[in-house]
Amino acid sequence: MNIFIAFDLSSSEKIFVQNKLKKHNLFFSNQVFNKIADNNYLKCEIVFGNIPPYWVAQSSNIKWIQLESTGFAEYLEVKINFLKNDVIITNLKSFFASQVAQTTLAGILSFYRGTDHFALLKKEKKWVGDPFRNKLEILNNKNVLFFGKGSINKEMAKYLKPFDCKCSFIDSHSKKEYILNKLNLAEIIICALPGTKSTKMLFNKTMLARLSKDSILVNVGRGDLIDESYLIEKLNNKTLRGAVLDVTSEEPLHKNNKLWNCPNLILTQHTGGGYTNELKDKVSFFLDNFKRYSKNTSLLNIINPSKGY
Amino acid sequence: MNIFIAFDLSSSEKIFVQNKLKKHNLFFSNQVFNKIADNNYLKCEIVFGNIPPYWVAQSSNIKWIQLESTGFAEYLEVKINFLKNDVIITNLKSFFASQVAQTTLAGILSFYRGTDHFALLKKEKKWVGDPFRNKLEILNNKNVLFFGKGSINKEMAKYLKPFDCKCSFIDSHSKKEYILNKLNLAEIIICALPGTKSTKMLFNKTMLARLSKDSILVNVGRGDLIDESYLIEKLNNKTLRGAVLDVTSEEPLHKNNKLWNCPNLILTQHTGGGYTNELKDKVSFFLDNFKRYSKNTSLLNIINPSKGY
Repeated sequence: MNIFIAFDLSSSEKIFVQNKLKKHNLFFSNQVFNKIADNNYLKCEIVFGNIPPYWVAQSSNIKWIQLESTGFAEYLEVKINFLKNDVIITNLKSFFASQVAQTTLAGILSFYRGTDHFALLKKEKKWVGDPFRNKLEILNNKNVLFFGKGSINKEMAKYLKPFDCKCSFIDSHSKKEYILNKLNLAEIIICALPGTKSTKMLFNKTMLARLSKDSILVNVGRGDLIDESYLIEKLNNKTLRGAVLDVTSEEPLHKNNKLWNCPNLILTQHTGGGYTNELKDKVSFFLDNFKRYSKNTSLLNIINPSKGY
Repeated sequence: MNIFIAFDLSSSEKIFVQNKLKKHNLFFSNQVFNKIADNNYLKCEIVFGNIPPYWVAQSSNIKWIQLESTGFAEYLEVKINFLKNDVIITNLKSFFASQVAQTTLAGILSFYRGTDHFALLKKEKKWVGDPFRNKLEILNNKNVLFFGKGSINKEMAKYLKPFDCKCSFIDSHSKKEYILNKLNLAEIIICALPGTKSTKMLFNKTMLARLSKDSILVNVGRGDLIDESYLIEKLNNKTLRGAVLDVTSEEPLHKNNKLWNCPNLILTQHTGGGYTNELKDKVSFFLDNFKRYSKNTSLLNIINPSKGY
């Protein structure tokens, strides 16, 4: 079979895949994604990695795309094409859950235990000590509001068990009034929502205005969820204890982006899903799914484009 | 009864204690601790707070001291006096466990999820993003070695349950060889030991040299546990992934202390036990114990000076 690998592998992983798939023809992408699809890609029935969505319709050979991400919002547009051509798309659902949930926990604890602040004090060689003690917090019994019921939030709720937090979940069935009331009471708000029409700018001015000044807002889903200019205002006015953003509307952030200057903001630069063995484990997942494909058994993580997650 | 309050309360807590103990005479310390004990102190049978240890023998009235700390190493020297005079000392055992364990978790996750590093990148308005992903780690299945079996480490072990870490505990009965072998394998080392003769400089060169270059060392016990100059060398040589020190041999750290310049070091400036309601809850604990004292029932947290913890 012809297989197109659309993302950058380290040389050791390249060798690993080549050894595992000796009987097949592998085409490694040159990482240039033009409007007109790559010739090698056009020969392939399998893709591993996130090709440009508009390439899908250009191929008459493509049968299966294994994405290297959980999100697939950009492929919603090609829905008609891939249904027509019977192209299957699978994603890495749940693959990033532990990592992202641990970045979430790290961010919240940075504010509660001051580690973010202590990093900056160390840079200045400045000792504060005792007077800082009563600015610290503990997680115990906190009111936590989760937006999304996916694997990240489930994992995070598991981590919070020892702290006896009061956890509530918002999903697509939650009523507006219920959400606004919950927001008023929340001390920690964790957003791990997929990119759909209804999540875009969900955290508008009305929603953000409801947040208590002692609360922490975390977004590890999509960058277009939040009205960033109003969030910047809130952070600068100190009407929010803090925010942790793994995703932002602009990525990478330009030097003049106002987020850089906001106090009480942790920017994890879209690394929430990262860990030492990330690439290796992605390759292993693809190889497992490839075995299923070869045996004609049902693939893992087939996406549902009509739901968007 | 005459009660001496040896530590600084905010005005609201002062009023609170005064209301609760209306029938008694309260003497608030002026925070000047001379060699010769304060006259007000000498009138009192009860002390709330940590008076200088050498004051104990100077009083013929003192009967009960409620410390505002867990550690009481400095009172070991007055052992003979307080046994002779039948002075009871109680401490705040377990009072700081949740807070310190959460500072420990915050510190470890700062390294694993990069938040410490991202704080500095934000200051420089520098985007790194993707290339940083494979430098991150997750807590799952890590080998964790605890020094001490007290409330802090028990609390921390509880927090680690969802991550399936392999936890081992070292206590005063552990054999040297066993400790050294365990150190070799440990990925996270958490020290929450009391200040005793046998813990002083326990982490000498031999012990520190055993630590793997991928490991994280945390000390939330006493500052004299670690050979700091060798630790500084290890951090500067990058033969340790990182260290979290809540306690240091010098406190506060002077500007010229070499710790300030060490990479991969989190200094939490002895705030590990702090939280918003710290003072209020300390006062409540004292008032509870005071009720027991008044009723002549056994006090909570009587220290054992021969053990030192």
